[in-house]
Amino acid sequence: MKIICSDLEGVFVPEIWVNVAEKTGIEALKLTTREISDYDVLMTKRLEVLDKHGLKLKDITDIITTIEPLQGALETLNWIREHSQIIILSDTFEEFARPLMKKLNYPALLCHSLVVDSEGRIADYKLRQANQKKQAIKALKGLNYTVIAFGDSYNDTAMLKEADFGFFFRPPENVIKEFPQFEVTNTYSELKDKLTSLL
Amino acid sequence: MKIICSDLEGVFVPEIWVNVAEKTGIEALKLTTREISDYDVLMTKRLEVLDKHGLKLKDITDIITTIEPLQGALETLNWIREHSQIIILSDTFEEFARPLMKKLNYPALLCHSLVVDSEGRIADYKLRQANQKKQAIKALKGLNYTVIAFGDSYNDTAMLKEADFGFFFRPPENVIKEFPQFEVTNTYSELKDKLTSLL
Repeated sequence: MKIICSDLEGVFVPEIWVNVAEKTGIEALKLTTREISDYDVLMTKRLEVLDKHGLKLKDITDIITTIEPLQGALETLNWIREHSQIIILSDTFEEFARPLMKKLNYPALLCHSLVVDSEGRIADYKLRQANQKKQAIKALKGLNYTVIAFGDSYNDTAMLKEADFGFFFRPPENVIKEFPQFEVTNTYSELKDKLTSLL
Repeated sequence: MKIICSDLEGVFVPEIWVNVAEKTGIEALKLTTREISDYDVLMTKRLEVLDKHGLKLKDITDIITTIEPLQGALETLNWIREHSQIIILSDTFEEFARPLMKKLNYPALLCHSLVVDSEGRIADYKLRQANQKKQAIKALKGLNYTVIAFGDSYNDTAMLKEADFGFFFRPPENVIKEFPQFEVTNTYSELKDKLTSLL
Protein backbone atom coordinates (compact mmCIF):
# COMPACT_ATOMS: atom_id res chain seq x y z
CA MET A 1 0.00 0.00 0.00
CA LYS A 2 1.12 3.52 -0.78
CA ILE A 3 0.96 6.71 1.23
CA ILE A 4 1.97 10.28 0.40
CA CYS A 5 3.93 12.68 2.61
CA SER A 6 4.43 16.31 1.73
CA ASP A 7 5.84 19.55 3.00
CA LEU A 8 3.43 22.40 3.81
CA GLU A 9 5.03 25.86 3.35
CA GLY A 10 5.97 26.59 -0.24
CA VAL A 11 3.89 23.61 -1.35
CA PHE A 12 0.31 24.29 -0.19
CA VAL A 13 0.64 27.57 1.73
CA PRO A 14 3.04 30.56 1.56
CA GLU A 15 6.04 30.78 3.93
CA ILE A 16 4.49 31.70 7.28
CA TRP A 17 7.31 33.82 8.84
CA VAL A 18 7.84 35.78 5.64
CA ASN A 19 4.15 36.69 5.69
CA VAL A 20 4.20 37.59 9.39
CA ALA A 21 7.24 39.84 8.77
CA GLU A 22 5.51 41.54 5.84
CA LYS A 23 2.20 42.06 7.61
CA THR A 24 3.76 43.36 10.85
CA GLY A 25 6.38 45.39 9.00
CA ILE A 26 9.02 44.09 11.42
CA GLU A 27 12.27 43.84 9.49
CA ALA A 28 13.96 41.54 12.01
CA LEU A 29 11.34 38.85 11.37
CA LYS A 30 12.49 38.65 7.78
CA LEU A 31 15.64 36.85 8.84
CA THR A 32 15.76 33.25 7.71
CA THR A 33 18.26 30.39 7.91
CA ARG A 34 20.04 32.10 5.02
CA GLU A 35 21.12 34.88 7.38
CA ILE A 36 21.25 32.90 10.62
CA SER A 37 22.12 29.31 9.82
CA ASP A 38 21.61 27.96 13.34
CA TYR A 39 17.85 27.30 13.62
CA ASP A 40 17.89 27.54 17.42
CA VAL A 41 19.60 30.94 17.32
CA LEU A 42 17.13 32.09 14.65
CA MET A 43 14.03 30.94 16.55
CA THR A 44 15.30 32.41 19.82
CA LYS A 45 15.83 35.72 18.04
CA ARG A 46 12.35 35.58 16.47
CA LEU A 47 10.77 35.02 19.89
CA GLU A 48 12.81 37.90 21.36
CA VAL A 49 11.61 40.16 18.55
CA LEU A 50 7.99 39.18 19.19
CA ASP A 51 8.47 39.96 22.90
CA LYS A 52 10.10 43.30 22.12
CA HIS A 53 7.08 44.29 20.05
CA GLY A 54 4.64 42.91 22.63
CA LEU A 55 3.28 40.38 20.15
CA LYS A 56 1.59 37.37 21.69
CA LEU A 57 0.48 34.11 20.14
CA LYS A 58 -2.96 35.48 19.32
CA ASP A 59 -1.48 38.46 17.46
CA ILE A 60 0.51 36.10 15.29
CA THR A 61 -2.32 33.64 14.68
CA ASP A 62 -4.59 36.59 13.81
CA ILE A 63 -2.08 37.46 11.10
CA ILE A 64 -1.76 33.86 9.96
CA THR A 65 -5.56 33.67 9.70
CA THR A 66 -5.33 36.26 6.91
CA ILE A 67 -2.95 34.11 4.87
CA GLU A 68 -4.57 32.13 2.07
CA PRO A 69 -3.40 28.76 0.74
CA LEU A 70 -1.54 28.98 -2.57
CA GLN A 71 -3.70 29.26 -5.69
CA GLY A 72 -4.93 25.75 -6.53
CA ALA A 73 -3.61 24.19 -3.33
CA LEU A 74 -6.97 23.24 -1.85
CA GLU A 75 -8.20 21.64 -5.07
CA THR A 76 -4.94 19.72 -5.42
CA LEU A 77 -5.04 18.51 -1.85
CA ASN A 78 -8.68 17.49 -2.23
CA TRP A 79 -7.74 15.53 -5.35
CA ILE A 80 -4.91 13.79 -3.52
CA ARG A 81 -7.17 12.90 -0.60
CA GLU A 82 -9.72 11.36 -2.95
CA HIS A 83 -7.04 9.15 -4.45
CA SER A 84 -4.72 8.27 -1.59
CA GLN A 85 -3.75 8.98 1.98
CA ILE A 86 -1.57 12.03 2.68
CA ILE A 87 0.21 13.15 5.82
CA ILE A 88 1.76 16.62 5.81
CA LEU A 89 5.17 16.83 7.48
CA SER A 90 6.11 20.38 8.42
CA ASP A 91 8.70 22.12 10.55
CA THR A 92 6.17 24.72 11.57
CA PHE A 93 4.29 24.76 14.91
CA GLU A 94 0.79 23.39 15.35
CA GLU A 95 -0.44 26.67 16.85
CA PHE A 96 0.66 28.56 13.73
CA ALA A 97 -0.55 25.90 11.33
CA ARG A 98 -4.10 25.59 12.68
CA PRO A 99 -5.73 28.53 10.80
CA LEU A 100 -4.16 27.28 7.58
CA MET A 101 -5.17 23.67 8.19
CA LYS A 102 -8.75 24.86 8.55
CA LYS A 103 -8.56 26.45 5.10
CA LEU A 104 -7.10 23.21 3.73
CA ASN A 105 -9.95 21.14 5.18
CA TYR A 106 -7.85 19.65 8.01
CA PRO A 107 -5.43 17.25 6.37
CA ALA A 108 -3.32 15.24 8.85
CA LEU A 109 -0.27 17.21 9.96
CA LEU A 110 2.80 16.16 11.94
CA CYS A 111 4.88 19.13 13.11
CA HIS A 112 6.26 20.88 16.23
CA SER A 113 4.67 22.94 19.01
CA LEU A 114 5.07 26.18 20.95
CA VAL A 115 5.30 26.74 24.67
CA VAL A 116 2.76 29.44 25.54
CA ASP A 117 2.59 31.00 29.00
CA SER A 118 -0.54 31.87 31.00
CA GLU A 119 -0.64 35.34 29.44
CA GLY A 120 -0.53 34.05 25.87
CA ARG A 121 3.11 34.95 25.34
CA ILE A 122 5.18 32.51 23.26
CA ALA A 123 7.70 31.54 25.93
CA ASP A 124 9.56 28.91 23.94
CA TYR A 125 9.27 26.38 21.14
CA LYS A 126 9.55 22.64 21.24
CA LEU A 127 10.88 20.60 18.34
CA ARG A 128 9.05 17.30 18.61
CA GLN A 129 11.99 15.33 17.25
CA ALA A 130 15.21 15.97 15.38
CA ASN A 131 14.90 15.06 11.69
CA GLN A 132 11.19 14.55 12.22
CA LYS A 133 10.32 14.41 8.52
CA LYS A 134 12.82 11.64 7.84
CA GLN A 135 11.77 9.80 11.00
CA ALA A 136 8.12 9.91 9.97
CA ILE A 137 8.96 8.40 6.57
CA LYS A 138 10.94 5.64 8.28
CA ALA A 139 8.03 4.95 10.64
CA LEU A 140 5.57 4.68 7.75
CA LYS A 141 7.92 2.30 5.90
CA GLY A 142 7.99 0.29 9.14
CA LEU A 143 4.20 0.08 8.87
CA ASN A 144 4.67 -1.54 5.43
CA TYR A 145 3.78 1.54 3.43
CA THR A 146 5.50 2.46 0.19
CA VAL A 147 6.10 6.18 0.73
CA ILE A 148 5.86 8.90 -1.90
CA ALA A 149 7.21 12.27 -0.69
CA PHE A 150 7.54 15.78 -2.08
CA GLY A 151 8.74 19.13 -0.78
CA ASP A 152 10.44 22.31 -1.90
CA SER A 153 13.60 22.86 0.07
CA TYR A 154 16.62 21.83 2.15
CA ASN A 155 14.63 20.64 5.12
CA ASP A 156 12.79 18.20 2.84
CA THR A 157 15.79 16.50 1.26
CA ALA A 158 16.31 13.96 4.06
CA MET A 159 12.66 12.87 3.75
CA LEU A 160 12.91 12.72 -0.05
CA LYS A 161 15.96 10.48 0.28
CA GLU A 162 14.28 8.25 2.87
CA ALA A 163 11.06 7.89 0.84
CA ASP A 164 10.60 5.16 -1.75
CA PHE A 165 9.78 7.89 -4.28
CA GLY A 166 10.90 11.44 -3.48
CA PHE A 167 10.73 14.50 -5.71
CA PHE A 168 10.69 18.30 -5.53
CA PHE A 169 7.77 20.66 -5.92
CA ARG A 170 8.74 24.27 -6.81
CA PRO A 171 12.26 24.20 -5.36
CA PRO A 172 14.51 27.29 -5.67
CA GLU A 173 17.37 27.12 -8.20
CA ASN A 174 20.14 26.60 -5.63
CA VAL A 175 18.32 23.60 -4.16
CA ILE A 176 17.84 22.08 -7.62
CA LYS A 177 21.55 22.45 -8.29
CA GLU A 178 22.58 20.95 -4.97
CA PHE A 179 20.23 17.96 -5.25
CA PRO A 180 20.12 17.01 -8.93
CA GLN A 181 18.98 13.47 -8.07
CA PHE A 182 15.41 14.59 -7.35
CA GLU A 183 12.98 15.14 -10.18
CA VAL A 184 11.37 18.60 -10.22
CA THR A 185 7.66 19.39 -10.55
CA ASN A 186 6.56 23.02 -10.70
CA THR A 187 2.80 23.16 -11.19
CA TYR A 188 -0.06 21.35 -9.44
CA SER A 189 -0.87 19.78 -12.80
CA GLU A 190 2.65 18.33 -12.99
CA LEU A 191 2.36 17.26 -9.37
CA LYS A 192 -0.87 15.38 -10.04
CA ASP A 193 0.60 13.72 -13.13
CA LYS A 194 3.64 12.64 -11.14
CA LEU A 195 1.49 11.26 -8.32
CA THR A 196 -0.78 9.47 -10.80
CA SER A 197 2.27 7.73 -12.27
CA LEU A 198 3.38 6.63 -8.80
CA LEU A 199 0.08 5.59 -7.19
CA MET B 1 2.76 16.66 21.64
CA LYS B 2 -0.40 14.60 21.56
CA ILE B 3 -2.11 12.76 18.74
CA ILE B 4 -5.35 10.79 18.65
CA CYS B 5 -5.89 7.40 17.04
CA SER B 6 -9.30 5.87 16.71
CA ASP B 7 -11.15 2.94 15.29
CA LEU B 8 -13.64 3.55 12.46
CA GLU B 9 -16.50 1.04 12.45
CA GLY B 10 -18.71 1.23 15.50
CA VAL B 11 -17.12 4.57 16.35
CA PHE B 12 -17.81 6.89 13.40
CA VAL B 13 -19.60 4.64 10.91
CA PRO B 14 -21.78 1.55 11.31
CA GLU B 15 -20.21 -1.89 11.01
CA ILE B 16 -19.68 -2.21 7.25
CA TRP B 17 -20.13 -5.97 6.97
CA VAL B 18 -23.26 -5.93 9.12
CA ASN B 19 -24.76 -3.37 6.73
CA VAL B 20 -23.71 -5.38 3.71
CA ALA B 21 -25.28 -8.46 5.34
CA GLU B 22 -28.52 -6.61 6.00
CA LYS B 23 -28.76 -5.08 2.56
CA THR B 24 -27.92 -8.32 0.76
CA GLY B 25 -29.94 -10.43 3.18
CA ILE B 26 -26.98 -12.78 3.66
CA GLU B 27 -26.96 -13.87 7.32
CA ALA B 28 -23.40 -15.27 7.25
CA LEU B 29 -22.02 -11.79 6.58
CA LYS B 30 -23.32 -10.51 9.92
CA LEU B 31 -20.43 -11.94 11.91
CA THR B 32 -17.85 -9.35 13.06
CA THR B 33 -14.77 -9.24 15.27
CA ARG B 34 -17.22 -8.95 18.13
CA GLU B 35 -18.15 -12.60 17.52
CA ILE B 36 -14.99 -14.01 15.89
CA SER B 37 -11.91 -12.35 17.30
CA ASP B 38 -9.49 -13.98 14.79
CA TYR B 39 -9.67 -11.57 11.89
CA ASP B 40 -8.09 -13.96 9.36
CA VAL B 41 -10.66 -16.64 10.06
CA LEU B 42 -13.44 -14.07 9.78
CA MET B 43 -12.25 -12.54 6.50
CA THR B 44 -11.63 -15.86 4.77
CA LYS B 45 -15.18 -16.85 5.60
CA ARG B 46 -16.56 -13.52 4.32
CA LEU B 47 -14.83 -13.81 0.94
CA GLU B 48 -16.05 -17.38 0.53
CA VAL B 49 -19.58 -16.17 1.17
CA LEU B 50 -19.27 -13.35 -1.39
CA ASP B 51 -18.02 -15.79 -4.02
CA LYS B 52 -20.83 -18.22 -3.29
CA HIS B 53 -23.34 -15.42 -3.93
CA GLY B 54 -21.48 -14.06 -6.98
CA LEU B 55 -20.92 -10.64 -5.36
CA LYS B 56 -18.06 -8.54 -6.77
CA LEU B 57 -16.26 -5.49 -5.40
CA LYS B 58 -18.58 -3.04 -7.13
CA ASP B 59 -21.66 -4.73 -5.68
CA ILE B 60 -20.22 -4.23 -2.22
CA THR B 61 -19.02 -0.64 -2.71
CA ASP B 62 -22.43 0.26 -4.20
CA ILE B 63 -23.96 -0.92 -0.94
CA ILE B 64 -21.33 0.86 1.17
CA THR B 65 -22.05 4.12 -0.67
CA THR B 66 -25.56 4.02 0.80
CA ILE B 67 -24.27 3.77 4.38
CA GLU B 68 -24.27 7.01 6.38
CA PRO B 69 -21.86 7.87 9.22
CA LEU B 70 -23.34 7.41 12.70
CA GLN B 71 -25.54 10.24 13.97
CA GLY B 72 -23.21 12.98 15.24
CA ALA B 73 -20.05 11.32 13.92
CA LEU B 74 -19.13 13.98 11.38
CA GLU B 75 -19.61 16.82 13.87
CA THR B 76 -17.55 14.95 16.46
CA LEU B 77 -14.78 14.21 14.01
CA ASN B 78 -14.78 17.84 12.83
CA TRP B 79 -14.50 18.95 16.46
CA ILE B 80 -11.58 16.57 17.05
CA ARG B 81 -9.79 17.79 13.91
CA GLU B 82 -10.15 21.41 15.05
CA HIS B 83 -8.53 20.54 18.36
CA SER B 84 -5.91 17.92 17.58
CA GLN B 85 -4.55 15.54 14.99
CA ILE B 86 -6.36 12.26 14.44
CA ILE B 87 -5.40 9.19 12.47
CA ILE B 88 -8.05 6.52 12.04
CA LEU B 89 -6.74 2.98 12.36
CA SER B 90 -9.10 0.46 10.86
CA ASP B 91 -9.02 -3.19 9.90
CA THR B 92 -11.23 -2.47 6.93
CA PHE B 93 -9.95 -2.14 3.34
CA GLU B 94 -9.28 1.12 1.56
CA GLU B 95 -11.61 0.10 -1.28
CA PHE B 96 -14.49 -0.31 1.18
CA ALA B 97 -13.63 2.73 3.29
CA ARG B 98 -13.42 5.28 0.48
CA PRO B 99 -17.15 6.13 0.15
CA LEU B 100 -17.35 6.56 3.92
CA MET B 101 -14.17 8.63 4.15
CA LYS B 102 -15.68 11.03 1.64
CA LYS B 103 -18.72 11.48 3.92
CA LEU B 104 -16.37 12.08 6.87
CA ASN B 105 -14.41 14.79 5.02
CA TYR B 106 -11.36 12.59 4.37
CA PRO B 107 -9.67 12.10 7.73
CA ALA B 108 -6.34 10.24 7.55
CA LEU B 109 -6.87 6.49 7.52
CA LEU B 110 -4.41 3.63 7.87
CA CYS B 111 -5.96 0.28 6.97
CA HIS B 112 -5.62 -2.72 4.63
CA SER B 113 -6.34 -3.38 0.96
CA LEU B 114 -8.10 -5.90 -1.26
CA VAL B 115 -6.78 -7.95 -4.13
CA VAL B 116 -9.27 -7.55 -6.97
CA ASP B 117 -9.03 -9.65 -10.14
CA SER B 118 -9.53 -8.44 -13.70
CA GLU B 119 -13.24 -9.23 -13.49
CA GLY B 120 -13.79 -7.20 -10.36
CA ARG B 121 -14.02 -10.22 -8.06
CA ILE B 122 -12.42 -9.83 -4.63
CA ALA B 123 -9.80 -12.54 -5.06
CA ASP B 124 -8.10 -12.00 -1.75
CA TYR B 125 -7.31 -9.46 0.92
CA LYS B 126 -3.99 -8.12 2.00
CA LEU B 127 -3.38 -7.22 5.61
CA ARG B 128 -0.81 -4.47 5.43
CA GLN B 129 0.76 -5.63 8.65
CA ALA B 130 -0.08 -7.95 11.53
CA ASN B 131 -1.25 -6.01 14.58
CA GLN B 132 -1.30 -2.87 12.44
CA LYS B 133 -3.16 -0.75 14.99
CA LYS B 134 -0.69 -1.53 17.75
CA GLN B 135 2.24 -1.04 15.37
CA ALA B 136 0.93 2.37 14.31
CA ILE B 137 0.68 3.47 17.95
CA LYS B 138 4.24 2.28 18.56
CA ALA B 139 5.44 4.17 15.49
CA LEU B 140 3.76 7.39 16.64
CA LYS B 141 5.29 7.02 20.10
CA GLY B 142 8.63 6.61 18.31
CA LEU B 143 7.93 10.00 16.70
CA ASN B 144 7.65 11.46 20.22
CA TYR B 145 3.89 11.67 20.26
CA THR B 146 1.82 10.99 23.35
CA VAL B 147 -0.93 8.82 21.91
CA ILE B 148 -4.60 8.87 22.90
CA ALA B 149 -6.59 5.97 21.44
CA PHE B 150 -10.17 4.78 21.47
CA GLY B 151 -12.13 2.00 19.86
CA ASP B 152 -15.05 -0.31 20.50
CA SER B 153 -13.91 -3.88 20.29
CA TYR B 154 -11.43 -6.77 20.50
CA ASN B 155 -9.31 -5.65 17.59
CA ASP B 156 -8.76 -2.32 19.36
CA THR B 157 -7.54 -3.63 22.70
CA ALA B 158 -3.90 -4.06 21.64
CA MET B 159 -3.84 -0.43 20.45
CA LEU B 160 -5.55 0.76 23.63
CA LYS B 161 -2.90 -1.05 25.69
CA GLU B 162 -0.05 0.33 23.58
CA ALA B 163 -1.36 3.92 23.69
CA ASP B 164 -0.45 6.31 26.49
CA PHE B 165 -4.19 6.82 27.10
CA GLY B 166 -6.56 4.17 25.77
CA PHE B 167 -10.29 3.89 26.39
CA PHE B 168 -13.41 2.35 24.89
CA PHE B 169 -16.17 4.02 22.93
CA ARG B 170 -19.48 2.09 22.84
CA PRO B 171 -18.05 -1.37 23.48
CA PRO B 172 -20.38 -4.38 23.78
CA GLU B 173 -20.92 -5.86 27.25
CA ASN B 174 -18.67 -8.89 26.73
CA VAL B 175 -15.75 -6.69 25.73
CA ILE B 176 -16.27 -4.45 28.77
CA LYS B 177 -16.19 -7.52 31.01
CA GLU B 178 -13.10 -8.95 29.39
CA PHE B 179 -11.15 -5.68 29.52
CA PRO B 180 -12.22 -3.91 32.71
CA GLN B 181 -9.01 -1.87 32.73
CA PHE B 182 -10.28 0.46 29.98
CA GLU B 183 -12.62 3.31 30.81
CA VAL B 184 -15.87 3.31 28.84
CA THR B 185 -17.42 6.25 26.98
CA ASN B 186 -20.76 5.79 25.28
CA THR B 187 -21.84 9.08 23.72
CA TYR B 188 -20.02 11.62 21.55
CA SER B 189 -20.49 14.10 24.35
CA GLU B 190 -18.68 11.77 26.76
CA LEU B 191 -16.04 11.15 24.12
CA LYS B 192 -15.41 14.88 23.70
CA ASP B 193 -15.25 15.39 27.47
CA LYS B 194 -12.76 12.54 27.78
CA LEU B 195 -10.61 13.91 24.94
CA THR B 196 -10.78 17.42 26.40
CA SER B 197 -9.44 16.06 29.71
CA LEU B 198 -6.56 14.32 27.92
CA LEU B 199 -5.53 16.95 25.36
